[in-house]
Amino acid sequence: MAISHLSSGEPISLMPYGKTVSGERSVALFKSEELEVIRLVLAAGKTFPSHSVPGEITLQCLEGSIEVTTDGDVQTLSANQLMFLAGGVDHGLLALTDASALLTIVLHR
Amino acid sequence: MAISHLSSGEPISLMPYGKTVSGERSVALFKSEELEVIRLVLAAGKTFPSHSVPGEITLQCLEGSIEVTTDGDVQTLSANQLMFLAGGVDHGLLALTDASALLTIVLHR
Repeated sequence: MAISHLSSGEPISLMPYGKTVSGERSVALFKSEELEVIRLVLAAGKTFPSHSVPGEITLQCLEGSIEVTTDGDVQTLSANQLMFLAGGVDHGLLALTDASALLTIVLHR
Repeated sequence: MAISHLSSGEPISLMPYGKTVSGERSVALFKSEELEVIRLVLAAGKTFPSHSVPGEITLQCLEGSIEVTTDGDVQTLSANQLMFLAGGVDHGLLALTDASALLTIVLHR
């Protein structure tokens, strides 16, 4: 995932990839002083193993459907849904369909 | 804007309001230790006067089209576009059409 340093005030597209989503790659949209924002792409059946980060997170499903496991709780996050995760919470992802999602992480420096 | 305190891991809807958007109100989705997340609703022609906050911001247009003025620069943010604003940057909004947007603010405490 290449990091691109976005200028303040520059619009970036979050348009759903649609039928081409499985051919796309996860991409770091930007990393600033306080935030890292990543567009995740997960093909159906792919997982993102359970882990945690110190900062708070929002995860927004842009298309498809993702199973999110947090400290043993399992939730389904579908297109146009947002989930908040407190800092330090273990979370793992499983794509139930081809999916993309916006991950916003508060950085602790 | 009432603040609801969201539990970690609870999905919340960001579905576009569609034709009913002009009858909706802005709502604070949650405020945590490090983040405040608001769904803004602006009817066509309405403004959000220029101001700044200490923390970094992302503004994501969920539907419609919003003119964003930052330190004299003018950009149009349309549905499915995200904008990053550094902390302390003056920004003002003008809805070019009925619009809703997700505003994520890093809190400084």
